[in-house]
Amino acid sequence: MTRHFQIDMDLLNQRLLRVSSGVAEALQKSVKALLDRDKPLAEQVINGDVRINRREVEIEEECLKLLALYQPVAEDLRFIAAVLKTNTDLERMGDEAVNIAEHAVALTKADPVKMPEQLGEMSAAAMKMVFESLDAFVKRDTALARKVCEEDDVVDDLNGEVIKHVKTMMQESPQTISPAMRLFSVSRHLERIADHATNIGEHVVYMVEGTIIRHNEISFTRADVQEED
Amino acid sequence: MTRHFQIDMDLLNQRLLRVSSGVAEALQKSVKALLDRDKPLAEQVINGDVRINRREVEIEEECLKLLALYQPVAEDLRFIAAVLKTNTDLERMGDEAVNIAEHAVALTKADPVKMPEQLGEMSAAAMKMVFESLDAFVKRDTALARKVCEEDDVVDDLNGEVIKHVKTMMQESPQTISPAMRLFSVSRHLERIADHATNIGEHVVYMVEGTIIRHNEISFTRADVQEED
Repeated sequence: MTRHFQIDMDLLNQRLLRVSSGVAEALQKSVKALLDRDKPLAEQVINGDVRINRREVEIEEECLKLLALYQPVAEDLRFIAAVLKTNTDLERMGDEAVNIAEHAVALTKADPVKMPEQLGEMSAAAMKMVFESLDAFVKRDTALARKVCEEDDVVDDLNGEVIKHVKTMMQESPQTISPAMRLFSVSRHLERIADHATNIGEHVVYMVEGTIIRHNEISFTRADVQEED
Repeated sequence: MTRHFQIDMDLLNQRLLRVSSGVAEALQKSVKALLDRDKPLAEQVINGDVRINRREVEIEEECLKLLALYQPVAEDLRFIAAVLKTNTDLERMGDEAVNIAEHAVALTKADPVKMPEQLGEMSAAAMKMVFESLDAFVKRDTALARKVCEEDDVVDDLNGEVIKHVKTMMQESPQTISPAMRLFSVSRHLERIADHATNIGEHVVYMVEGTIIRHNEISFTRADVQEED
């Protein structure tokens, strides 16, 4: 491949890293805004999403430009395909941060409710997965990428606990139904953030090894899904 | 482009259509299972997901093979990029069908609850979007694709109504909190299905016109998102 191609590929990598750090920051702020009842911080996340969206489109256009211009094969093609997919997951994570921030804003308008302890734990676990998946991408570290995929179970379990907690809260004090439903939603958004981190882990394995692992070694642990066809 | 390339592109198109109809069927069955309290039908959806997942991986591998083998440009490249993205949305729709089916199974284990009327309306509206988006893909119909994107607001509004209904249900009879939370989740899954149909509409416009419309003409109707950067 030409020198120009290498420069363009490096630039693409840098762009993806920039959007990654923007998304990670938005996620952290959204959770902080929720826990601290910090409306201005939540609004910052909501207003910042337009920037993440714009960068997502730029990265996608750049990927398609590189495909058309250099017609890369093998590893280079896999790298671009992985960037395309990771880019989508990052943008969706940004959307989840906005969702959490919107619940945070709404919650500041009502009386404070006791946050389920597991929500803090869950957001910490999800954020850990986000950082590890991005780190795995940068270092092409498939062992770390696989670790991220495994950690998804931890977040799913915590999600189950938050749901239980929220349900009890609603049953014991029906006046908390509205805010409790928001906490339930937040928990789902955190769970989805962890899913996106898992996706990025899978893209890293694909990029480095050329194998698509989703629905296989990791997702097929569900006993209720039987083979057919 | 060579004749072989054309044949491979046609095959790819057919594969996508086959997975589309599988996903549309799973969605319809999952909603029917929910409304009719039909556990075997729900289980059929859950067990069928493995097939959708397998096909998704095959289509992705095929896309990457075609990119590497023929190094297509312009329209052909955009077609493959659109297939890659649509494929991901279809697989996610299949996951949403499974989620709905799992709630359907769980709901058969408890006393029947009155379904919010808007849930039926909402699933009809979401399914309409799914069929239209796939139709727009097949016919390369950008007007229809844009219509799908606009219809997303209808589903969002119905989702709001279902949430209100579910909240009232929980407040009036706290013993329904558990099933009501499931209905709340189902509503969210339907909303996401509509989002995926919207994504497909956007991919169609990109494929035909070469312009990325997401976050632009459609998504930027939110007044609370201010420009910055």
